Amino acid sequence: MKASELGERKLIKLLTRGLYKNPRVLVGAGEDDAALISFGEKELVAKSDIMFRSTHFPEGMKPEAIGRKVAVANISDLAAMGASPLATLFSFGLPPSFDVSEFARIIKGINAACLEYDAPYVGGDTKKAKELSICGIALGEIGRGEAIRRCNARSGDVVAVTGKIGDAALGLEILLKGMKTGRYGKLVNAFLNPSARVKEGRAIAQCNIGAAGMDITDGLFFSAGEIARMSGVCLSLDRWSIPISKEARKFAEEHNVKENYLLNNGEDYELIVTIKREKFEEVRSKVEDAGGSLIQIGNVIKGKGVLIDGRRVKTAGYDSLNYP
Amino acid sequence: MKASELGERKLIKLLTRGLYKNPRVLVGAGEDDAALISFGEKELVAKSDIMFRSTHFPEGMKPEAIGRKVAVANISDLAAMGASPLATLFSFGLPPSFDVSEFARIIKGINAACLEYDAPYVGGDTKKAKELSICGIALGEIGRGEAIRRCNARSGDVVAVTGKIGDAALGLEILLKGMKTGRYGKLVNAFLNPSARVKEGRAIAQCNIGAAGMDITDGLFFSAGEIARMSGVCLSLDRWSIPISKEARKFAEEHNVKENYLLNNGEDYELIVTIKREKFEEVRSKVEDAGGSLIQIGNVIKGKGVLIDGRRVKTAGYDSLNYP
Repeated sequence: MKASELGERKLIKLLTRGLYKNPRVLVGAGEDDAALISFGEKELVAKSDIMFRSTHFPEGMKPEAIGRKVAVANISDLAAMGASPLATLFSFGLPPSFDVSEFARIIKGINAACLEYDAPYVGGDTKKAKELSICGIALGEIGRGEAIRRCNARSGDVVAVTGKIGDAALGLEILLKGMKTGRYGKLVNAFLNPSARVKEGRAIAQCNIGAAGMDITDGLFFSAGEIARMSGVCLSLDRWSIPISKEARKFAEEHNVKENYLLNNGEDYELIVTIKREKFEEVRSKVEDAGGSLIQIGNVIKGKGVLIDGRRVKTAGYDSLNYP
Repeated sequence: MKASELGERKLIKLLTRGLYKNPRVLVGAGEDDAALISFGEKELVAKSDIMFRSTHFPEGMKPEAIGRKVAVANISDLAAMGASPLATLFSFGLPPSFDVSEFARIIKGINAACLEYDAPYVGGDTKKAKELSICGIALGEIGRGEAIRRCNARSGDVVAVTGKIGDAALGLEILLKGMKTGRYGKLVNAFLNPSARVKEGRAIAQCNIGAAGMDITDGLFFSAGEIARMSGVCLSLDRWSIPISKEARKFAEEHNVKENYLLNNGEDYELIVTIKREKFEEVRSKVEDAGGSLIQIGNVIKGKGVLIDGRRVKTAGYDSLNYP
């Protein structure tokens, strides 16, 4: 069977079945946003994300933006666990004819993001390949038991997100279709110049109240579905409360894009979290103190899957083996 | 300028110039076999190595051997620092048509190596790409100040290696030329089924005597040259003492391969180390207790570069951007 027929999720399930573990592995492959390993008095968080020219970098994406994107994608998984960034590594595949100054600009984009998140770029590798390939690795640390886990949602929790959903998915759409970006600069920028919600993730984890959560890089519905599946609950969302930007609404109206498209497509690095109801105001206030925001979009109830305004939604999300 | 014109080493120099660091980074990008980061009472060691079908996996290399190779290449960098393996991550690029059962066999090879070195495979990523691409990441830990560093060699030290040099380079040659492997099984096996010198590295690091060292994946002369350059010394090697297998000598004779080819080409995962003369017997005995061996092949003297029997050798090694 071909990899594309099986799809990314089943492939991951297949590959993580029966892997060797030892007692220091607290969270292993396929179990959450990142791995969690016991390390002295703390826990080490590790995640790797790989991207390829033919799949991930639309024509016209500047080298600095490519670098930033890869760095932020990796750091975002630390944010989703609530970890403090520690360091990053980047390994490259380059075609022999690849332009050195373009490569230097990619590194510049990576390094700027590393500085922004205090996640110094400490190593990696460079090899010959058929296309530009960049594998990023983010390492972080977190106090024992503090990690935000996909499996922590409980019936009665509040569901919340850290910011607006859907801008980046539309931004990518605009770039892929080669549309003029002028009028939709904010949407395109959300795709090209993303931010990882590290401060928000840290603030939530430090409350140490067993929050659930992950980032929304594969779409809100998919992420909500993952939390529901891993926690054995249902996430019931209220459509009116999901924050969508004026620009995204306008673009969707003008181009006949259904709102569910925004909620079902990725590239946002916002977090979706679930928080114990009685702790929600306290956590929201900590996130605001850290300079972020936390917007309630629904509730955790008994059951399974994801509801929006009481109707069940598909949570398949974006499958990177079949994309675009 | 094209990447291949600049070459791998200059490219790395370019990309690591001016990277952001913070005080927790003890060894950063381009400074040694792996990065070293302060983490509580210990130090975290991290390394990433990336490989591509078109560059690294000769025709006929079995999927299990591909998996093992990538895992061992990464774990070997932990060995070269003297670290204990902690965990590994692997990120994949797969063509959509890639066969799932072949992928499962690659994972099997990886997992077997992870078990062998107690370096559990804890995460990674899978994306669509033009060719099979595998990025491995090895994480390890080491006591404060114990790391074997490339810059630690001092005039008067003994130069030693942990095993035979050149088998793997010939094994690769045999595979690339499509020669029958029957008679040269041992050489081919050295390439296909390598071992990382973790026990040896650990034994040396635990002696805590400021040893220098690295692995020999880019050739003995290159590695000797790196230690010489980073330490500001000259490594003077004695040709007769360099351990070369009977099979390698025989193949070289029959096929008119110069001995320097064995010493100038990579794919061996043996370590080259330099040890204070008065400590050498003690360290050798610890390495032997751990089940390994340490063979003196020369001495560190004042000066620079690498000498063999008193004559200067080129230390350019293997450049993976220009290979094969």
